[in-house]
Formats: sequence, C-alpha cells, structure tokens
Amino acid sequence: MSQTIKAGLVGVTGYTGMELARLMTHHSSMELVRATSRSEAGKTLADIYPFLNRLPLGDLVITQPDPADLAEQCDVVFLAVPHKTAMEIAAALLDEGVKVVDLSADFRINDKATYEKWYAVEHTRPELLTEAVYGLPELYIDQIMGARLIANPGCYPTSAILGLAPALDGGLVHPEDIVVDSKSGASGAGRGAKVGTLFCEVHDSFRAYGLPTHRHTPEIEQEVSKLAGKDVTLSFNTHLLPIDRGILSTIYTRLADNGTTLDDVHATYADFYADQPFVRVLPMGQLPETRYVRGTVFCDIGLVIDPRTGRLIIVTAIDNLCRGASGQALMNANLICGLDIDEGIPMAPMMP
Amino acid sequence: MSQTIKAGLVGVTGYTGMELARLMTHHSSMELVRATSRSEAGKTLADIYPFLNRLPLGDLVITQPDPADLAEQCDVVFLAVPHKTAMEIAAALLDEGVKVVDLSADFRINDKATYEKWYAVEHTRPELLTEAVYGLPELYIDQIMGARLIANPGCYPTSAILGLAPALDGGLVHPEDIVVDSKSGASGAGRGAKVGTLFCEVHDSFRAYGLPTHRHTPEIEQEVSKLAGKDVTLSFNTHLLPIDRGILSTIYTRLADNGTTLDDVHATYADFYADQPFVRVLPMGQLPETRYVRGTVFCDIGLVIDPRTGRLIIVTAIDNLCRGASGQALMNANLICGLDIDEGIPMAPMMP
Amino acid sequence: MSQTIKAGLVGVTGYTGMELARLMTHHSSMELVRATSRSEAGKTLADIYPFLNRLPLGDLVITQPDPADLAEQCDVVFLAVPHKTAMEIAAALLDEGVKVVDLSADFRINDKATYEKWYAVEHTRPELLTEAVYGLPELYIDQIMGARLIANPGCYPTSAILGLAPALDGGLVHPEDIVVDSKSGASGAGRGAKVGTLFCEVHDSFRAYGLPTHRHTPEIEQEVSKLAGKDVTLSFNTHLLPIDRGILSTIYTRLADNGTTLDDVHATYADFYADQPFVRVLPMGQLPETRYVRGTVFCDIGLVIDPRTGRLIIVTAIDNLCRGASGQALMNANLICGLDIDEGIPMAPMMP
Amino acid sequence: MSQTIKAGLVGVTGYTGMELARLMTHHSSMELVRATSRSEAGKTLADIYPFLNRLPLGDLVITQPDPADLAEQCDVVFLAVPHKTAMEIAAALLDEGVKVVDLSADFRINDKATYEKWYAVEHTRPELLTEAVYGLPELYIDQIMGARLIANPGCYPTSAILGLAPALDGGLVHPEDIVVDSKSGASGAGRGAKVGTLFCEVHDSFRAYGLPTHRHTPEIEQEVSKLAGKDVTLSFNTHLLPIDRGILSTIYTRLADNGTTLDDVHATYADFYADQPFVRVLPMGQLPETRYVRGTVFCDIGLVIDPRTGRLIIVTAIDNLCRGASGQALMNANLICGLDIDEGIPMAPMMP
Repeated sequence: MSQTIKAGLVGVTGYTGMELARLMTHHSSMELVRATSRSEAGKTLADIYPFLNRLPLGDLVITQPDPADLAEQCDVVFLAVPHKTAMEIAAALLDEGVKVVDLSADFRINDKATYEKWYAVEHTRPELLTEAVYGLPELYIDQIMGARLIANPGCYPTSAILGLAPALDGGLVHPEDIVVDSKSGASGAGRGAKVGTLFCEVHDSFRAYGLPTHRHTPEIEQEVSKLAGKDVTLSFNTHLLPIDRGILSTIYTRLADNGTTLDDVHATYADFYADQPFVRVLPMGQLPETRYVRGTVFCDIGLVIDPRTGRLIIVTAIDNLCRGASGQALMNANLICGLDIDEGIPMAPMMP
Repeated sequence: MSQTIKAGLVGVTGYTGMELARLMTHHSSMELVRATSRSEAGKTLADIYPFLNRLPLGDLVITQPDPADLAEQCDVVFLAVPHKTAMEIAAALLDEGVKVVDLSADFRINDKATYEKWYAVEHTRPELLTEAVYGLPELYIDQIMGARLIANPGCYPTSAILGLAPALDGGLVHPEDIVVDSKSGASGAGRGAKVGTLFCEVHDSFRAYGLPTHRHTPEIEQEVSKLAGKDVTLSFNTHLLPIDRGILSTIYTRLADNGTTLDDVHATYADFYADQPFVRVLPMGQLPETRYVRGTVFCDIGLVIDPRTGRLIIVTAIDNLCRGASGQALMNANLICGLDIDEGIPMAPMMP
Repeated sequence: MSQTIKAGLVGVTGYTGMELARLMTHHSSMELVRATSRSEAGKTLADIYPFLNRLPLGDLVITQPDPADLAEQCDVVFLAVPHKTAMEIAAALLDEGVKVVDLSADFRINDKATYEKWYAVEHTRPELLTEAVYGLPELYIDQIMGARLIANPGCYPTSAILGLAPALDGGLVHPEDIVVDSKSGASGAGRGAKVGTLFCEVHDSFRAYGLPTHRHTPEIEQEVSKLAGKDVTLSFNTHLLPIDRGILSTIYTRLADNGTTLDDVHATYADFYADQPFVRVLPMGQLPETRYVRGTVFCDIGLVIDPRTGRLIIVTAIDNLCRGASGQALMNANLICGLDIDEGIPMAPMMP
Repeated sequence: MSQTIKAGLVGVTGYTGMELARLMTHHSSMELVRATSRSEAGKTLADIYPFLNRLPLGDLVITQPDPADLAEQCDVVFLAVPHKTAMEIAAALLDEGVKVVDLSADFRINDKATYEKWYAVEHTRPELLTEAVYGLPELYIDQIMGARLIANPGCYPTSAILGLAPALDGGLVHPEDIVVDSKSGASGAGRGAKVGTLFCEVHDSFRAYGLPTHRHTPEIEQEVSKLAGKDVTLSFNTHLLPIDRGILSTIYTRLADNGTTLDDVHATYADFYADQPFVRVLPMGQLPETRYVRGTVFCDIGLVIDPRTGRLIIVTAIDNLCRGASGQALMNANLICGLDIDEGIPMAPMMP
C-alpha cells in the first residue's frame, strides 16, 4: 500500500466497537482516525479500554459524532450504533462523499414495509435501501467492491445463510421445511447495563429467548429466498449461551431426494465454497465448535445426514463479534477501499 | 415413618453417585448404608468427597460391590454403573430379594434387539426387560409402586418425553415430524478423565456432538410412540453446554390443526400435568432456563406457537443429574419402598 | 414446633433476598409472610423469581415496605437493603416490637465514628450500636439468643474472622503482620444493572478491585482485635472471581514461635471449633474449594505452615450468599426466635 | 527479511504447543516446519487441531521427535515437553548445532542441587546450566541475543519477577518480607486427562493448591535475589481459577521507607520499564485484569500503597500461555535468530 486508508467509527462503546478497535490494532493499511461516542467524548480509547494502553490506537481521542468532521477525515466510516439511529447518519455521510459500512439492521432489508413491520420504526431513507449492498462476501463480492453503502449482515443471519446457501442453491432440500436452532454467546446481547445479562444471570445457565419473533428472521428469509429461487418462510429460534463469543446454528432441513448421500452433499458444499478461504466445510464426521472460530471470520460448517428421518442437518459456527459483526465489516471496508479482503483479518483462533 | 429404609449405591465415584450422596444427606426416612467402588473401597465417602466432611454420611466406608452383602444390608439398591455392567448386578440383587433402581440404560428398552443394535452389546438378562418398569413417575406411577426393578430414565429422554407427552397424547401435532434439539451440561459426559471434557476444552465454547446417532434416540421413540399410539421416528440431536448441570431441549413439532391456538395448547398441557407437582407448565410468554431447575426434579415447560410456519415449539428444562438421574431415581426408590414420592426431594433451586 | 414463626423480608429483589427465598422454601418452622420491594410491589414472588413457580412461597404477593404492617404480621424481619437505608427501618421495627436481622453494614461497627469514616454517611441511630449483637454464632451465640437486633456479618469478614479466630485467640501468630487476600464470586457485587458486572466483563477474567480501602476492613479489624486482645491493623484485599458464589480467603500470618508445628496449629483449630458443626477444619494436607461449601453455611478451613518463611497460611472458604449473608441470617433468626440453629439450614453442597 | 527462519516444535499436543501453533499462523518471518509428537505422528496438525483447517500450517505432518532430522530442517527448536525430558533433547539438539528455546524448567535454575531438590530428579546436563540464558527479555535481552540455549521462564515466575523487579532494584521494599499470592487459569495445569481438571471439577469453583511447595518458588527466588542483591526467601502460593488463560499475582511487600509515596513508586516503575513495550505500568488507580492481556505478551502492573500497614501491593497480570510460555518463547526465538523481538507477537487482546 502506498497510502493508508483512514477510517472512522461511530459508536465505540459497544462490543462491536470494542472488537473493531481490536482488529484495527494489527491492520497495516487502514488506520482508525476517528472514534465517536456521545457519552465518552474527550477521553482517549485507552481510558475506556485499558487493553489499548501503550498501543498507538489507545491515544486516539474520542469525539462527538459529526458527519462533516468524519467526512473530512475519513475514507470510510463504520456505524456501530443502534438501528434507526444509523439510517440518518449513513445518509449524511454518503451526502458528504464518505463510504459507509453500517453494522446496524437499517439497510439489510430490501423491502421498506418488511423492515418497518419487524423493527417497528419508520424507515426515513428508503431511497438508500436499493443502493445498499448486503455485505456477505461469499455471495456478493462483486457488488460490494463497487458499493458506497454496505449493509453489514447480522450475526445470526450470517451463520444461517452461509449454512443454507449451497443446499438451497443446489436444490438439495425442501425450502419450505427449514428450522434454524441458533445459540449465541452473551456479547450478542450488547454492552448495555441490564439485569438480564449480569454475570450471575447468565453464567452456568442456558435459556431460549425471543421465540418465535426474532428480528433476524426476515433478513434470513430474504437471502435464502434468493438462493432458493422462491419465497421461503422458515422457523428461526434463538438461545443464550454462557460464553463470550460464538454462534452455533443447528439447521434442520429435509432432503429433496432421499437417495442423496453425505458424499453428494459434502461435494456440493465443498464446490460451492471452493474459492472462499473463510468458509471451512469440515471433513465428514467432524462437527463445528465455537472455539475453533473464536476471534476469526471463519464460518465452519459440519454436515450430517440422518437417514432415519430423511433430514440433512447443517451445523455452522461463527464468532458473532468478528464474522458476525466487526470482522465482516472490516472485510467489507477492505473491499470497498480497494484493499485485499483479508488485510488485518485474524486467521488464528484463540485456543483455548 | 416408624422405620428407616436402608439403601445401597453401587458405583459411587461418578457424578450420579455424587448427586445421590448429596440428596441422601437431607433424607429423613432413607439412609445410605452401603456405597461401593472397585477403585476406592476402604476409603470413607468424605475421603473422596470432601464436601461430606463432618456430615454423618461422610463416615460411610466404601466397600467392594458384593450382591450378597448388599442384599443383607439394604432394602433398595441404586445402580450407578455403566450399561452392560448393570444388567448382571441387577439380576443378582433381584435374586437376593433386593429392590433395584438401575440408572443405566440396560432395562429401558423393551425390545432386546433394539437395545442390542443401539448399544452394540448382547443383553444377557432379557427376561427382566418385561418386568422392569420405566421410572417416569408422571407416566407410570402405579406400575412403579409395585415394581422390583426400575429402569430409571435417561436424562435427555426425560426432557423430551415430558415435553412431548401432552401434545402427542392429545393429538395436537403430527408425530412424524418431530425434531428434538437438546443441549446438556458437562456433567452428562461423566467423570472419567478424558481430554475432551477438560475445563479448557469445554469452557467458553459450545459444540454439537453425536449427530445423528445418540443412544437415547430409541428410548425417546419407544415412549413417545406409546403416547402417539403409533410408531414414531424422530430426529434427536445433542450439544454440549459449558455449564455443570442442566438440559434444555427445544422441540419442534408441526400442528395437526393450524387453527390450534396457544391457549388451547397451554390448556392441554396444564390439564395433563394438573396433578403433577414436579412438572411446571410455565405461564404463556415465559421460557425455561436451566438455572430455574438446578438441583431439583422440576421439569419446566415453555410453549410457543409460530403461526408463520404452523409449528408448536416446546422448550423443556431439567437438571440432568437430579431429575435426569439421581433425583428421579430417589423418587422411584421412595415409591417402591412405600414412602411419599417427594421425601428428601429438593424443591428450591440454587439461584444463582 | 407447636407454632410457626412468621418472618418478613425487606428488600427481596437482590441476591440476598433471592437466597433467603431459596432457604425459606425448605424451612419447616418458619414461614415467609411478607416480602417487600418498592419497585416490584403487587407482583408475586414467582413473577419475579420463576424458580418459585408452583411452590407455595411463589404465591406470596410483594408489598411496599411498611413497618406497621411488618410488625403486625411478623415475629422477625430480615433487612436486605443497602446500608444507610437499613438503620431507620431497623429502628422503626424495633419500636414496634419486632426482632430484626439486618444484613446491611449499619450495625456491625461498634464505633460510630469508625462507621461514619468508612461508609461516609452519618449514623442516625447510634443508640442501637451498643445493643446490636454481631451475628457470628461461633463467637457470640449466647448474646445472639437474647438479642432483638442482629448485625449480620459481612461476607468477607465471616471468612476472615473465622479463619483467624483460633490463631489469635491462641496467640499462635503476630497480630501486627496479617494479610488477608480474598477472592469473591460475582453475586457479592449485587444485582444492580452495571456494565462492570455484565457477563462479558466478568467471565473468563479475574481482577483485583477496591485496594486498599474495602469497607469490610474495619469490621474485620474490630472482631480480630477482640480475639487478639489488642488493636489489630491488617491488610485486606479483594478480587472478583468469575463464579456465582463463594469466597476463598488466603490469610498470611507470621508464627509467634517458629517451633510451632502444623500438628500444634491443627489441634488448636480443631479444639476451638470442636462444638461448632458448621466450621470444618480440614484434615492436614487438604485445602478448601468454594464448591465444597456451595449453598451451605459451612466454613472450611485449611492450614499450611511454610517453614521457609515462618508463616502460618490459613485458607478459608464460604458461600458468600449463604454463610456470608442469608444463611447466616437464618441461623441468627432461628436463634433469636428460639429455634434450633440448624432448622432449614442446608448441609449438602451442590456438587458439581 | 530476505530469508524465512525455520522452526521446529517438540511436543505439539499440549497447550503450549497449541499456543505456539496459533502464534506461528501470523508470523511473517518464521515458519514452523517440524512438529513432533510420539502419540500423534503421521497426522497433520489440522487433524488434531481443527482450528487450523484450511490454514497452511494445518497441513504440516506431525513426526516422531528425531534430533538429527530437527537439526537438518530447523534453525531453532522449541521444546514443549515435560521437565527431565527436555534436558537430553536440548543437549542433543545443541550438539547438532541447532538453537534451542526450552519451555520446561530444566535450565531455569542455575544451581544443580537446587534444581534436583525441588524437581526430585537428577540433572544430567549440568554443564549446560551455566550456558543457558534465562529468557526474560526485560532483564536479559543482551545475553538472549547471543545465546544458543534459552531457559524460557515459568508462567508464575514471569508474573512475580516483572512485578518485583523495579521495587527490589530500587530498594523500595524489604526483600525479606514478600508474599506472592498467585492465581492461574486452568490451561496452566496442562492438557493431560485428569479428573481434577475436568470441566465440572473446575468450573464455578476456586481453590488453593500446592501450598507451600510450588516448584516455581526457587525460580522466583533466584531472580529476585539477583535484583535485590541478596538472598531472598519469599512465600509463594498458588490458586486455580475457572478461566482458560491468565495469571494474576497480588504481591505483598513492606516499604523500606514509610514516607515513600505512590508517586515515587509509580515513577520508579515507569522509569524501569520506560523502554519496554510489553510491560504496561498502569496509571495510578487502575488495577490489572487478566482479560486485558489475553492472548498477548503484555505484563500489566498495578501499584497500590496501603498507608495503614506500610505495604506496597503490586498486582500483575499476564497470559500464562502467551507471555508465560509460548509467546515469550517466540520473543526469545526472534531474538536469537536476529529478528525483531515483536515479529509475530500479538498486541491486541481478545476482548471480551
């Protein structure tokens, strides 16, 4: 790189902001030059994140979010703010000529009415819905490279869509009979102070939540419908794991042809992801574990056929903060800024 | 009680043995007078379980397993040994006139061939298969009270069968389209020294395992078939949670009649379990958490209807060691010894 | 018991209130008839604590705290409210003739000035400081039995004082050279919604906090000074463990006489606690673990002599919520109400 | 770098071997070309470590340990084998002209008799004890750069020595009155299959162990004695944390001069480590947490003065696997191979 890309981060105090700070520490071609927070402006990053002490990034002073300033200083801006908040900031930044990677849900749903129904707010920038590119590189890399606005995928949808894509694209399963049983680590619940996510309320326990109306449902359905070539309605259900990071989704499908073998399925998946370095179709007989992808953008996929019930069971694992949020956002930022997709992307999981 | 029941425990060193020791500490009508272990004989219980220091039970000296001695000293014997080992010990004890609660799988499967296929060993005491009573009190309390030999249910099957019973008994769902997605705490993997269950291999991670051939499958299918009145083949899949205790099963079914409302389903469940103090059908809108049943024999059941897909989703939570093993064994022992089912049974979960 | 003692609980929403609810579930001679909370009044206990579903205690309706009502309904009232709040409620209840067990710090410090210095609030009921009895049964059982007002000991102080008492009483160590290094589970930090005690901030990590000014310091010093027969100033330091419950204190002392053997020390401790069923001086060579006391009022004590440095190292373990708060409060309530100290007191730890 | 350094690893199946594999994944100037294991030879690294699937390192075939082969293929070899085993392998490799970084204890203790007393084995290569350089870069970087044989420091000693060095070097504290209270994550207990380190034996609990005879004691004393300029005997005590990685040591010392202020102490520490990028003396008022150093070679140091007792309390945190083992080993390997110390060294902790 002859020149360093300058990046901004709106909303630094949550776990996705924290994760982006981690990733930027080792990026050689992109530099975080702005980090904003309404509540922490004036402090340095190291003040709020002691793990950045003595690192150059730790000296960055947090500022108030200001589109004009961000536009002047940054080539690309990450939005790590709640849905509804993001849509206006994104529009303002785009108006100023800055590229935007939005980690919220605001531009993921193509259809305004669907967005408004599931998120219960009005979408005030519907004109951007058609422009925004869904930032799942395995499916949309060409569109991403030319985009100004990336709708960074949700964590659960990433795990579900990557797991289902080859099966639906290849017509291996019935699209109308899909159950996605997902389990997520607690960082997915955010960094807000709530009794329900206190250590003593989560540790050494496990629970289902949000059934059957999780907001990631329409996002999954939208993308798998495109893959299936028809409208898909599926059952998506979520659980809270007492771990920091990681989503494991167990996806139940019914084979279109009962004669399909595991060899067939494995070959279809291996072929679909042959050129995708970040999706690992595991050897037959192996199943994913969240620790094997911890801190990385890998999506591990295990495949099982249950001949007794005619089902193909797809098990996927990702790191919800890295592949499910900030790591994927960085892949997208790399792409829209003309860098290689894997610059600054960690490949080695924290083990144990 | 005018007289204390004397109990024996074959196999004290595993987690089910440990849990039974915990439960017997507070039992006022039953006393543990024998605890056996081939490897630890000669030590006291407090020697191997320091949590029993200064408690009367801690002074019990562990002995070699000897059916004659057990028969002489005990009214009832719990078998907490691996499958295959249990069948011969059970037979020997029954021959000596002792009642037996077997925590292994050896007498749970009514059909010899099915047992032998799934467990890959010969069943050498098939004549006892017909006599053994499946020890799920909510379904078989009358038979249990007159039994000599109890096949104590498996942990996963307890969570699945109690969850499905009202729906299948009431004809609410299609029996041929059932998926049981179960997640268990690590104590279910036993106390043997294995790398795979070391702290650093389980902590802060989550994985699927054993798909699609877990040995509890035929046990579940046998019991739900009886409830459905027809042979049921279902998909049963297991995961390992980084918690000590607890199983949460998310059970996906398809409604027989799309007009069925959650009120209908809830009423069916509440009615089915109306006289069962240990099954708690949660208020509509609530979902189970493993912590709420920790250390108890409660089975908590949450009910969800997903109108978009026509599914009834049943979520159950039990403590795998207590309700799923030793606590249920104690309920059964109470019953076959003429005590009230709830003597010595803990009702108050450890929270947090 | 011919008659059931009626108890009230002011402040039911914290972890100590939750723990008291757990304990009362199995108490045969005392009944919780009032539970108060300003924020949750009108709900039942089961509404806020689903683990109490289907239990009689779950039906209790939470009320606003009202001394007159509490006095009318209750023989004894537990105060599980923050310090400063407790002092006025206690006074009002005593005026109404109700016995009080106060779990806050308000009556633990005999000296008004010391209290005000460390807690930075005025003590408005100093006349009760002399009446209040420090509720550590191993040291003050006779005074407790005749008391109207119990100052229930703090969690850390319980672990430190019980560990040091025999050594100081017996003159085994220099009182001027004591370091208490304590580690506590996260329930000790309370149930308020704070970022610092979110799951993802505590899990898989460990930290020191509050050095060197933890408010439990004067409470420990007050009690060990009485045991030593002289004013003791010691170093007390705290750490946060990623566990739900448990305090382990490693206490460093210097032997008064370098010729003292471990046999001597062990005999002194065994003798001091010979009649105390809830303090377990472990066999020589054994060290405490928090799990061995989980859910109980046991205090386990391990003793080590380091001949190279002339130090006696005392390691103690308690459950901070049970022995360190609500369990000890119940022991005290039993005593002041004329019940046996161990009624309703759990002896069997949750293992694992 | 014009040329890649070729490295070997003897003993790949433990947690230190696993960690070295993680680190080598991102090293741009050093390549792992040999990994040995007696039990796993013939498999690829990805076979035993699925987290290496699809990474180049995952294809490396594990071989039997063979000094001649290692010498032929490697510039430097890491020994991640138990003490006693390492000494002969190291000698054989040195004879073949290969540089060695030994992660075992075999060459850490300068004095043969002391080694043999604490480790209870004969040292068969005493001639190498004088040649081996203790691989703590902050103290010995010049000697390390010219060394053939590095004795990589123990995990606990790294945390203790770095914490004490400025205080002892600067004469701030009395060397004869030091207590090191250390707490370590479970990866420090190794990857051998033992009941005591099973998930259910460690999770949600905390314990002291090994008091007062931990084998790291003489290593700490040797190094701090050099710093103090006199023989130091100290009290070193260890505890097991329910976390994967991390050591936090709380070090109690007595100020030589009671007039010393925290400003003085902080200035001494800041000055001592002014040129050391991997030791972070925290701002006054901040205390370390193991998560802030997770996955890195940072040693964070917090400083506290307790004026009431005249003590300086030093709190240090490291990652036991990274700074306490493989990460420090890689720093040393970089140095002896002429690379910059920080090549391939991770600076960004996994948060959360």
